[in-house]
Amino acid sequence: MHPARADIQVDTPEVRVTEWRLVPGSSTGRHVHEMDYVIVPITTSEMTVFAANGERSRARIDAGKSYFRKAGVDHDVHNETTSEIVFLEIELKDQG
Amino acid sequence: MHPARADIQVDTPEVRVTEWRLVPGSSTGRHVHEMDYVIVPITTSEMTVFAANGERSRARIDAGKSYFRKAGVDHDVHNETTSEIVFLEIELKDQG
Repeated sequence: MHPARADIQVDTPEVRVTEWRLVPGSSTGRHVHEMDYVIVPITTSEMTVFAANGERSRARIDAGKSYFRKAGVDHDVHNETTSEIVFLEIELKDQG
Repeated sequence: MHPARADIQVDTPEVRVTEWRLVPGSSTGRHVHEMDYVIVPITTSEMTVFAANGERSRARIDAGKSYFRKAGVDHDVHNETTSEIVFLEIELKDQG
């Protein structure tokens, strides 16, 4: 697995927005989310997700359909499909 | 101008995400942003923006290219194009 591409679009005291692009065969690498976050899928895709315990699952994302997660998620996201996966990660800073 | 469609995708204590869909000839109506917010354009479009003083301007948005604004923006967004405009608004709650 080679690394996904991460480009920061916004970085203010309030929020950080990162565009993630995973070409086929790439992965984010294992990471822990330190902040609450919203994901906005740009592509409709299937992600392969490895949890901290190594458990593997599939997660479908739908273009334009956002979702929210609390801080603490610990995982590695792989692209095992034949198409690029693109999504924006919006991390919420200063949430007390 | 008929009203744009607004669908709430996420509403938690931390954040609210609203999907805005403006068919040609529709508008958001004048509104004041009470919270800091991020816009994620889903379409590449040209918005017509009326500021609080009535001043009219054009603003291009690019699909997947987010931007951040502080609370206090007071405007009305119109779609004077021939294509639907779609974007997500991510409002940041509890920012002190």
